[in-house]
Amino acid sequence: MKEFELIKYFFTKQIVKRKDVELGIGDDCAVLAPIENQNVVVTTDTLVAGVHFPFETSPRAIGHKAVAVNLSDIAAMGAKPSWLSLALTLPNVDEKWLLDFCEGVFELCEFYNVELIGGDTTQGPLSITITAQGLTPKGSYLTRSGAKAGDWLYVTGDLGDAALALQQIMGKIDIEPQFTDIIRKKLDYPKPRVLAGQILREYASAAIDLSDGLIADLGHICQSSNVGANIVLDTLPLSKAMRESVLFDDAITFALSGGDDYELLFTVSEDNKVGMETAMSHAATSVTCIGQLNTSQTISTTLNNKPISINTTGFEHFKK
Amino acid sequence: MKEFELIKYFFTKQIVKRKDVELGIGDDCAVLAPIENQNVVVTTDTLVAGVHFPFETSPRAIGHKAVAVNLSDIAAMGAKPSWLSLALTLPNVDEKWLLDFCEGVFELCEFYNVELIGGDTTQGPLSITITAQGLTPKGSYLTRSGAKAGDWLYVTGDLGDAALALQQIMGKIDIEPQFTDIIRKKLDYPKPRVLAGQILREYASAAIDLSDGLIADLGHICQSSNVGANIVLDTLPLSKAMRESVLFDDAITFALSGGDDYELLFTVSEDNKVGMETAMSHAATSVTCIGQLNTSQTISTTLNNKPISINTTGFEHFKK
Repeated sequence: MKEFELIKYFFTKQIVKRKDVELGIGDDCAVLAPIENQNVVVTTDTLVAGVHFPFETSPRAIGHKAVAVNLSDIAAMGAKPSWLSLALTLPNVDEKWLLDFCEGVFELCEFYNVELIGGDTTQGPLSITITAQGLTPKGSYLTRSGAKAGDWLYVTGDLGDAALALQQIMGKIDIEPQFTDIIRKKLDYPKPRVLAGQILREYASAAIDLSDGLIADLGHICQSSNVGANIVLDTLPLSKAMRESVLFDDAITFALSGGDDYELLFTVSEDNKVGMETAMSHAATSVTCIGQLNTSQTISTTLNNKPISINTTGFEHFKK
Repeated sequence: MKEFELIKYFFTKQIVKRKDVELGIGDDCAVLAPIENQNVVVTTDTLVAGVHFPFETSPRAIGHKAVAVNLSDIAAMGAKPSWLSLALTLPNVDEKWLLDFCEGVFELCEFYNVELIGGDTTQGPLSITITAQGLTPKGSYLTRSGAKAGDWLYVTGDLGDAALALQQIMGKIDIEPQFTDIIRKKLDYPKPRVLAGQILREYASAAIDLSDGLIADLGHICQSSNVGANIVLDTLPLSKAMRESVLFDDAITFALSGGDDYELLFTVSEDNKVGMETAMSHAATSVTCIGQLNTSQTISTTLNNKPISINTTGFEHFKK
């Protein structure tokens, strides 16, 4: 099958047709219609087989995750996702694989009204690069650099389940059968917190999505905002699967440095705390206050109101 | 070296700072400023080592080419390139390699005032995916679908040299030493016809960039525009290196199906012919009329005013 037919056949089967896309897939470029009084936000993320997902991951999950990790970055800016460009490198053309992969991609696109505007398919070791774009009212977006000492530190959802699932796949941990599907879904089908991000745009002082682990990503906020933080370990949100599968110490390690959570980590001033919690109570996503920012320039942790030292870093791709 | 430091260190060393980039590399997303009365054009292209360039290609050439092939798509729309997102997958972190690669990327970015707005670096087999964006006055851009029977068929520059260079690298053809550097440069450092594209926006009825070979890419114009075409083989622009290195028949084959030329193939109505040629005479890029469109729905070729059959297709990634 020719490359062009392949792209046309699979990538044009989407339902979403946005009014701001004048020309979609099929020419040298896509053409987007003018945007007034809005900022465009842009992010790029690559998933490599064997590095970012186990080789045996289902194609539908790969498609879902490739989109989700990008939408998660859009969510962290408080923006609304709009357009995707997809570069897919495949060892060979497998129609069944492509159909399932596209299903994973398009499910999320349809849910968030995101249009796939360009695709490139090349032969090589399996990897997926997506460039996602989003829109936000002019001047209104979240960054990593707006946090202030005294702001409260929050996180959406539960932490560490994806890392727990990965340990199980690697045969390092036994999980009760009743929890296996639940945590595996957290790893394979992460939910980008797109709606939460848009609500938080009005309340948060800074935000980032959790891809590398809580400590590593909080470090980015602290560095960009020139603050420190204390995490109250007792408050870290842990799922039932996590609490019943591993010891508390291990659960905390997963929550702090597991990575692949794709929850939002954000900061809120004292003044906005109640407003944010009220607004978020209408969203389908839980939020948990896990600590507070300070002027220390370092990240500390407490347990039972006592300082406790941690030795953990986030997930690093180049770390062996 | 940590992934984040790596990205920060190498990718932020650019000189270009555009006013329409509110937030560049370093947050979850880049933030682009509102654009009024302009269209945004978007393209994505991946280069895989061993597929799109020989493994022994210099990192500077790889960086150049990864940007050039994307700007070539922007050029084919008649747009002005503005922003790049770069996803780089590397087997390991090699500082010297990265410095040279970035030099290749940034040379072109500086020449065209394009800002790198996002980067992702992952571990895996060497491949580069770039998403390039460009701007064009609202409603004014070239597509593949505007050609009409009777329009004249043009191409910029010379054809086939990149394919000739590849044959030499593969040891299939001997080239005189005086030509080796010239054709190798055509393969490794293609010049995207960005300025030509912007001039042609006023004159051409359709355009495409030549990445897969003249026949294949002309096929895309014919299919999108619902026309046929005749190519006058005697007129195909061939470099001195090509003419003196191979027999005429082989030169024609390279020109028709070699691929990797990154010249523009475009069509011009009888009414716009003189205007286009006059305007292009001020550009640094030569243009050659190589045939005419017709209603046949097929592509034919003539030599010495006589029909001649050709059996050739463009470069296909998945073709073994």
